[in-house]
Amino acid sequence: MSVNNKKNASTIISASWIFTSNSKNELLSDYSIVIKNDKIIDLISQDEVFEKYEANEVYQLTDHIITPGLINAHSHVAMSLFKGFADDLPLQDWLNNYIWPAEKKFVNSQFVKEGSILALSEMIKSGVTTFNDMYFFPNATAEASKELGVRSNIGLVVLDFPTNYASDPEDYLVKGFDFRDKWRNEDLISTSIAPHAPYSVSDKAFNLINTYSEELDLNIHIHLHETIWEIEDSIEKYGITPIQRLNNLGIIGPSLIAAHCVHLNEQDLSILASNKVNIVHNPSSNMKLGSGIADVARMIGQNLNISLGTDSSASNNRLDIMEEMRLAALLIKGTTKSPELLPAFQAINMATINGAKALGLDSLIGSIEKNKKADLIAIDLNSILSQPSYNPLSTLVYSSSRSDVNYVWINGDIKLKAKVLVNLDEEKITQISKSWQTKIKQI
Amino acid sequence: MSVNNKKNASTIISASWIFTSNSKNELLSDYSIVIKNDKIIDLISQDEVFEKYEANEVYQLTDHIITPGLINAHSHVAMSLFKGFADDLPLQDWLNNYIWPAEKKFVNSQFVKEGSILALSEMIKSGVTTFNDMYFFPNATAEASKELGVRSNIGLVVLDFPTNYASDPEDYLVKGFDFRDKWRNEDLISTSIAPHAPYSVSDKAFNLINTYSEELDLNIHIHLHETIWEIEDSIEKYGITPIQRLNNLGIIGPSLIAAHCVHLNEQDLSILASNKVNIVHNPSSNMKLGSGIADVARMIGQNLNISLGTDSSASNNRLDIMEEMRLAALLIKGTTKSPELLPAFQAINMATINGAKALGLDSLIGSIEKNKKADLIAIDLNSILSQPSYNPLSTLVYSSSRSDVNYVWINGDIKLKAKVLVNLDEEKITQISKSWQTKIKQI
Repeated sequence: MSVNNKKNASTIISASWIFTSNSKNELLSDYSIVIKNDKIIDLISQDEVFEKYEANEVYQLTDHIITPGLINAHSHVAMSLFKGFADDLPLQDWLNNYIWPAEKKFVNSQFVKEGSILALSEMIKSGVTTFNDMYFFPNATAEASKELGVRSNIGLVVLDFPTNYASDPEDYLVKGFDFRDKWRNEDLISTSIAPHAPYSVSDKAFNLINTYSEELDLNIHIHLHETIWEIEDSIEKYGITPIQRLNNLGIIGPSLIAAHCVHLNEQDLSILASNKVNIVHNPSSNMKLGSGIADVARMIGQNLNISLGTDSSASNNRLDIMEEMRLAALLIKGTTKSPELLPAFQAINMATINGAKALGLDSLIGSIEKNKKADLIAIDLNSILSQPSYNPLSTLVYSSSRSDVNYVWINGDIKLKAKVLVNLDEEKITQISKSWQTKIKQI
Repeated sequence: MSVNNKKNASTIISASWIFTSNSKNELLSDYSIVIKNDKIIDLISQDEVFEKYEANEVYQLTDHIITPGLINAHSHVAMSLFKGFADDLPLQDWLNNYIWPAEKKFVNSQFVKEGSILALSEMIKSGVTTFNDMYFFPNATAEASKELGVRSNIGLVVLDFPTNYASDPEDYLVKGFDFRDKWRNEDLISTSIAPHAPYSVSDKAFNLINTYSEELDLNIHIHLHETIWEIEDSIEKYGITPIQRLNNLGIIGPSLIAAHCVHLNEQDLSILASNKVNIVHNPSSNMKLGSGIADVARMIGQNLNISLGTDSSASNNRLDIMEEMRLAALLIKGTTKSPELLPAFQAINMATINGAKALGLDSLIGSIEKNKKADLIAIDLNSILSQPSYNPLSTLVYSSSRSDVNYVWINGDIKLKAKVLVNLDEEKITQISKSWQTKIKQI
């Protein structure tokens, strides 16, 4: 309490609109968000805020809408260095002749660190404040996450086959737990176990993963039913679909984060629904790789929690959750012929609170509420491209782009200010990416 | 020829890459485009250009790609004032309770002029240099087109029912031909006849239109097979699909520009293919209104000419052909599960030369070639969001956004310079749009 009876805050942000993504989907007009250190301590009318609080930093954002920071619930951020390296190719050609050879040749700690810094820079500029990752050399991803101050849930990847990073499932897990021990006290970093996919992980490894996941209370992040191929392959090898196999192995449950789920039969869907599995919808990546289009309406009909992911830059080329949000809203209408499905506010929730729920972080992030962490983004609705704006939520989902993201705060710290990355040297990051490009191009 | 033996030009633009959209799909590196008045007079290596030419304006655009100006082959630009006025609604509710009452109450010459200026400003900033429009009060659209210097093909709309603009098909046509007579000598403006749709135009009116179209050598621009409803309605009323009916009426032919074509049976497709009809694919609008997703792969398989359109801001909310280009490329891969379909260069051609062919303007625009009009856009590929860039065409289609459009020239005149509209007052256009919003909101 200062001498003038006003409470001290770190930052006060006032905006024309605040979409809270809270359980009532409240849209506040002319409100202020009061932040102390890393937390939101009040939501209060602009008329009253300065009677009650004073702060070091004050933002008056007329014609802006503030939403919770966007959550990229499925990523492989380091792969940003492969962005556009191989496009428009059949999946097997893409994997066998481009991605896997390039990974074998180039992926190491430095690649992952520098690729992650590029990706995190892109994500901050796109309003993404949290990402849920799965890749090799997670220490390097965590270093980037800490350095740039972007919230992350980092998967401890497990595969049956050797890579530059580890030799077998036990080795992946040992390295994973070393990682977890090292980073467990970092405020911005949490972990999950990330068996790559049913087709690349054996029953034996899944049993180990299951034990550790329960013992350490870790979510499991996996690729699931992304392509028809993997389902046919499972039926051939195991006589059942991957979802049915994972269900038998005890992997399916509310702590599972299942990326994709493009192809589901009735039984698969029912297993996911009754176990409250968290689904990550990756519409751009699923289309670009020719995997298909997930039937999100059917999953919403089963009350499944659906969040949004970009997947990697090798299969999407933009780590842009606003684009995925628009695409999710358009695709569900187009595929079901029901334009009333996934209205704007629900699309925003997919990109915010639903992602937080998937990651088990919804007590901390995903909505704008007292005592939650201050992960916030401000989008300018005053651009000529956004005129007129009858409804700020419609404008945000259907007209705005990531280029309208003007301010980003993560954990109370400002990361993007008037579209400029704070404390980051864009030119240097660009140059480092270009030098990787020169090397990788020669493969 | 000047004293130094160099030829005079108006503008020389040098860029790292030039994608020509010519019949060989040539991508030129480190070339220059030489413009004299409204025309491209040379394409020449950067090493040689200043030996041969001198110009008043010179642009050295490192890390930029230049493409032909994008062509929005289906629009209702004035409807920009209804952008976001009604979203996420069932089609009949949207039309009956929002769009039609608002049109009845507000649409007049001033609405069309001011809505068109807003739309054309948005399109210039989005790299669109030509639009193919259909709406009421075309004089007002033409005035905006002339004032802003954006190339247009303006449809002479025909409907069976009365609107604020005209009372019956004859009245629409009389007004249309007055319009044509008034504007026929404008360099940037061409016309077509635009019967709204098979369900809103009678056989009698189609017969009239057919006669005039042949007599005056005008293309016909129409909404066709956008929804399942209109096909069922036609079968109920006429016993045949709208395409079959129009075929019987002699309307189907190579000068037809058919927007949508979302639902086609084998016979419909075969009629379109054998008559070389020009198809305009509007993926965002078709999805947002719940009409469906056009089967573009099947149409390409029949060698149909497919261009891209935004439709109106009331059903898309962004007049952004780059977004439609990306979406077209993703959707075809996702719906067919063939990631190799519609590679980046073909998606760009859809947005450029294919649009020019549809409008019958391909001798003037749609590709970067000697003697064509200088309708050009320059996209910055050096943004951190576009790094790395292994292939400039992939970067353009899959990573870039309209916010990367830095320069736009139409008919040799610069319209956008370092992202700023030339000779246009953005603030004033924004304010006018906001004042319409205040009025329209109250409906």
